[in-house]
Amino acid sequence: MSMNDFQRIGRVQADYSRCIDEGPLERWPDFFVENCMYRITTAQNYSEGLPAGLVWANTRRMLVDRVSALREANIYERHTYRHILGQPLVLDENGDGIHAETSFLVVRVMRDGESDIFTSGRYVDRYVEVDGQLKIAERVVVCDSTNIDTLLALPL
Amino acid sequence: MSMNDFQRIGRVQADYSRCIDEGPLERWPDFFVENCMYRITTAQNYSEGLPAGLVWANTRRMLVDRVSALREANIYERHTYRHILGQPLVLDENGDGIHAETSFLVVRVMRDGESDIFTSGRYVDRYVEVDGQLKIAERVVVCDSTNIDTLLALPL
Amino acid sequence: MSMNDFQRIGRVQADYSRCIDEGPLERWPDFFVENCMYRITTAQNYSEGLPAGLVWANTRRMLVDRVSALREANIYERHTYRHILGQPLVLDENGDGIHAETSFLVVRVMRDGESDIFTSGRYVDRYVEVDGQLKIAERVVVCDSTNIDTLLALPL
Repeated sequence: MSMNDFQRIGRVQADYSRCIDEGPLERWPDFFVENCMYRITTAQNYSEGLPAGLVWANTRRMLVDRVSALREANIYERHTYRHILGQPLVLDENGDGIHAETSFLVVRVMRDGESDIFTSGRYVDRYVEVDGQLKIAERVVVCDSTNIDTLLALPL
Repeated sequence: MSMNDFQRIGRVQADYSRCIDEGPLERWPDFFVENCMYRITTAQNYSEGLPAGLVWANTRRMLVDRVSALREANIYERHTYRHILGQPLVLDENGDGIHAETSFLVVRVMRDGESDIFTSGRYVDRYVEVDGQLKIAERVVVCDSTNIDTLLALPL
Repeated sequence: MSMNDFQRIGRVQADYSRCIDEGPLERWPDFFVENCMYRITTAQNYSEGLPAGLVWANTRRMLVDRVSALREANIYERHTYRHILGQPLVLDENGDGIHAETSFLVVRVMRDGESDIFTSGRYVDRYVEVDGQLKIAERVVVCDSTNIDTLLALPL
């Protein structure tokens, strides 16, 4: 099955979401390059160009550490997520990689069965090809709401 | 317009969702092969390998009967659904067919105008080609929440 | 990157959603042809063939005026939207253009951080090609709920 970049990004996104929603979470850092940039911020901070975010990592190692911490805290026991993503919009392709944005909605499902909108926003991404596979070189998770639940724990 | 398997599955999913959300519901069984497997279960049951689900059918005939029952009960008068699906993730293609998973979110819209999240989850599917068309040979609807509303009536 | 019609429509949809969710809203009328038809209605009105809708415009100029009015009313200060769209379903392609439907869910994010389902429904669209680009010739926004919030302001 031959795919173009649009489809390849869609595939990475679907696989990425599934990794968080179904596990195993240990696979999550594999979607990134070694010297990746990953951060979670709010739309307001992002539009004002403020660097500080809710989560910040600039190596894959930091993502691995984060997964270990989540495992120890047994976060998975309390709730699960469901990512629903729109189609990616490729904005630019240059020597730097492929720049794309994708809208997301994350539903949080509590153990007792309650579901609510956890957060919504967009992924601002840059992808590069490593050994024939698309990897995330940079992902800024821009959340729409200004006050994200402090329970924020699983990756977005 | 030539499409690859990824797009063909996306097309079946969009058509399937439209059939439930807009009707006519009588078309719904046509998305399945004659000896299909269709069941609705919870993530917890599914992960524990428990066979029992909320809904279970192993022939298209059973799906036809279900639609008739829904019509007689006038389920459509009370509320409508809106399916929002992510992009399908093709996991495997072999002699058995195409194995794919797709995240879904179903919003329930009551007649008085209230909308809420009815359920979310993923379709665990196997598709086969019949007379040049992709049909669903197996669909397990794995709902995230453990307690689905007992009003569960329209297909997912 | 060569794309087929299915992907081209998906791209227009993602770009359109981004324009409303992230701005600048002034770009919004550019997605339409000069003599476009744009209206917002409810599923009930639509199914009964009633012409009256919540919003009605039959030229791009009217869309431009609408954006100006929204700017003056500072609607953007109060809340933002997040559009999550399903994949487009191409229903027909003829001399008239490409007919397609797409399910949508719009989440409204208030400044204080609250998120709720604003509306859901489907776009009933006709696209035509203008100078090599797909433009919207006709868009009927069919909302599922019968009573849309009177705050309805930003385009859908």
